[in-house]
Amino acid sequence: MKTVNIGLLGLGTVGGGTATVLKRNADEITRRTGCHIKVSHAAAKDLSVAESLGLSDCKLSDDANQVIQDPQVDIIVELIGGYEPARSFVLQAIEQGKHVVTANKALIAKHGNEIFAAAQKKGVSVCYEASVAGGIPIIKTMREGLSANKINWLAGIINGTGNFILTEMRDKGRDFADVLKEAQELGYAEADPTFDVEGIDAAHKLAILASLAFGMPLHFEKVYTEGISKISADDVVYANQLGYRIKHLGLAIRAKDGIEMRVHPTLIPDTRLIANVDGVMNAVLVHCDALGPSLYYGAGAGAEPTASAVVADIIDLARSLDMDNAHRIPQLAFQNDAIKEQKILDIDQIETAYYIRLTAKDEPGVMAEISDILGHAGISMEAIIQKPPVDDSGDVPVVLLTQKVKEHKMNAALEQISALEHVQDDVLRIRVESLK
Amino acid sequence: MKTVNIGLLGLGTVGGGTATVLKRNADEITRRTGCHIKVSHAAAKDLSVAESLGLSDCKLSDDANQVIQDPQVDIIVELIGGYEPARSFVLQAIEQGKHVVTANKALIAKHGNEIFAAAQKKGVSVCYEASVAGGIPIIKTMREGLSANKINWLAGIINGTGNFILTEMRDKGRDFADVLKEAQELGYAEADPTFDVEGIDAAHKLAILASLAFGMPLHFEKVYTEGISKISADDVVYANQLGYRIKHLGLAIRAKDGIEMRVHPTLIPDTRLIANVDGVMNAVLVHCDALGPSLYYGAGAGAEPTASAVVADIIDLARSLDMDNAHRIPQLAFQNDAIKEQKILDIDQIETAYYIRLTAKDEPGVMAEISDILGHAGISMEAIIQKPPVDDSGDVPVVLLTQKVKEHKMNAALEQISALEHVQDDVLRIRVESLK
Repeated sequence: MKTVNIGLLGLGTVGGGTATVLKRNADEITRRTGCHIKVSHAAAKDLSVAESLGLSDCKLSDDANQVIQDPQVDIIVELIGGYEPARSFVLQAIEQGKHVVTANKALIAKHGNEIFAAAQKKGVSVCYEASVAGGIPIIKTMREGLSANKINWLAGIINGTGNFILTEMRDKGRDFADVLKEAQELGYAEADPTFDVEGIDAAHKLAILASLAFGMPLHFEKVYTEGISKISADDVVYANQLGYRIKHLGLAIRAKDGIEMRVHPTLIPDTRLIANVDGVMNAVLVHCDALGPSLYYGAGAGAEPTASAVVADIIDLARSLDMDNAHRIPQLAFQNDAIKEQKILDIDQIETAYYIRLTAKDEPGVMAEISDILGHAGISMEAIIQKPPVDDSGDVPVVLLTQKVKEHKMNAALEQISALEHVQDDVLRIRVESLK
Repeated sequence: MKTVNIGLLGLGTVGGGTATVLKRNADEITRRTGCHIKVSHAAAKDLSVAESLGLSDCKLSDDANQVIQDPQVDIIVELIGGYEPARSFVLQAIEQGKHVVTANKALIAKHGNEIFAAAQKKGVSVCYEASVAGGIPIIKTMREGLSANKINWLAGIINGTGNFILTEMRDKGRDFADVLKEAQELGYAEADPTFDVEGIDAAHKLAILASLAFGMPLHFEKVYTEGISKISADDVVYANQLGYRIKHLGLAIRAKDGIEMRVHPTLIPDTRLIANVDGVMNAVLVHCDALGPSLYYGAGAGAEPTASAVVADIIDLARSLDMDNAHRIPQLAFQNDAIKEQKILDIDQIETAYYIRLTAKDEPGVMAEISDILGHAGISMEAIIQKPPVDDSGDVPVVLLTQKVKEHKMNAALEQISALEHVQDDVLRIRVESLK
């Protein structure tokens, strides 16, 4: 029976999960593939975990280059994370004519164009299923499962930490800072939570999904990114009362004037299936011309869920090791010569509905002033609700829902509103998407 | 540019959808595949629709054999449905060395073993993504996306008609017969609704999913099948009050003693994502050892959603027309020599929890008698609730929820209960699954 040798770079959470899954499911994987897949060489800074991962019979190095140069290794699996040295290792592996599997969203989002071009030149494949939404086979779905379709838009809950925080805020009425602290204690959030709660991690993943959806080069730097740290427990309650849930969404939309790529907190109707994706779980909703809406749900992180995607990529490669590149699915779903730059809209050019929450003096005329500004800006309102005062300051929260409007118009109107004498400065705006 | 020629058998709903999608998305498909895919020859009893489908420049026959024998045709797409003549046409196409795409669940469930053996012998591929859950790429997911995993169990809402009926019953408090009549008028249900509401259609699909999950030959005839026609509007209400929804599920489970394959109405906790899959939509929840739970949701029927899956199969084949079979994904996910017969449990050997609804005289001692029978049978109760009388007959509905127990034990206990003097004969039993 043919043996396929894996060179593993990194024995952290995902590296350990990958070694574990390959070993535990070796028989099932052989039943599926007709070959034996084993880790033959692994590199990590700390090799002490190797034995507990059942890697005692495999070559071990503290230098990744030893693995990359190992002529016995068929596939390099990069599970180090981050931009460098991951980028160099992957490029070196390609240079050696080896196929690569990676779970590294930052690497693909930022350096994917360079990496795919290098792989194309050497006739090897770089697989990255685990880079978006963990174990959910969303890359395969976008590249192959939905290949009959023109993809209109997609919306994803693609950061588990953020979704855990928003779910806890809703279920228990807790504040952002309070839940974040717990998430850090539970290990769901990093000590520096910026990547997760400010949407950078989600933006990496969204850039990848958008390229797969629309056939354009990766443009992580053009993703508009806004975090969830300004959402208050009150906002979550008000949204619920209006029939909405607040989710930190990544949105890629083929709009009339160009492509939208944005990550921000979003009100979505609570009747949508994706509104009910809670806790650390991920989901991607894809809207296509033939299929209509479809949704893919599962664990977006964790050792074995991520390993599920890494090993699926390994199996795809093991089945096709000696196949010529012409038969492979193109890296970014579209043929190289069909990948085209497309106009990406600035955030002030997008059109969406808005939830506005502001604090105003409880005096006659304030609501009329606000309505007046919106009316003059041509912004139609769905609802304007004055909430009971939260303390005895004489201030009351006011919540508005608008219909769809271009963002620059809304910004101009909000500037006028926050300049009103009886309105406090900190007007909060959350975009609203119907996801229909 | 290479052209791949499709021979289309059948121009009904799905055949028409396939022609439409191939034509409308021709540019996008060429961007993805680097080749031109066109219907070059079509056969149907009624060819009058061909022109409106944009097939006026393709060869047309009223005899499927003309298409199958056409040397220009690379791929035969069978969209006739039913067992025969679909089976003969597919076998003839294979004999001609042609690849086949089919949306025919009945054909694959009943004759798949024969068809796959013939295809294997001739070195061609038979693709059937559209046969289960319409446009949801669940076959690809099971065969490729989840290939790292040992699959523990799956649960699917895989018949849109049944789900539409149950959703309407819940949302509007309507009776089964009443909603069925409307579904027939809307075209969601056939004039003879047996295939849908008695679970036969779902059983076809479940047989396919079970083989893909566990690596065993297709055994449609061993799927236990129970319809939804006995569910009353009251049951839907009682289930809701207990925190459950009633769904018509297909379940394939790797149990301790063997494989379970069953289609029946099922109470599931309303907090599960799949409990919120409503209307004609389909969803499949798959539980794997590494990934844990993942769910795939979308349109399970309709012209273009089904065409989405048919055309995805066509694209997969177009990419690999001249590839040898060793590089292809095995038809049933596992290598031929690894597909093994497995013990399939009789329905009375399964273990599950139960919802019981019976009608009893409102007299002292009846509840005690029922509890006594269950206690002696070793069946633990979660809840026993006497509902208010529905009329002035002196009869009251009694609803029970049990813990898990072997079905034959429950059957024996129910026989005793329905024999009680003060209990009416028509005791209804619905299985309860936590889907955890």
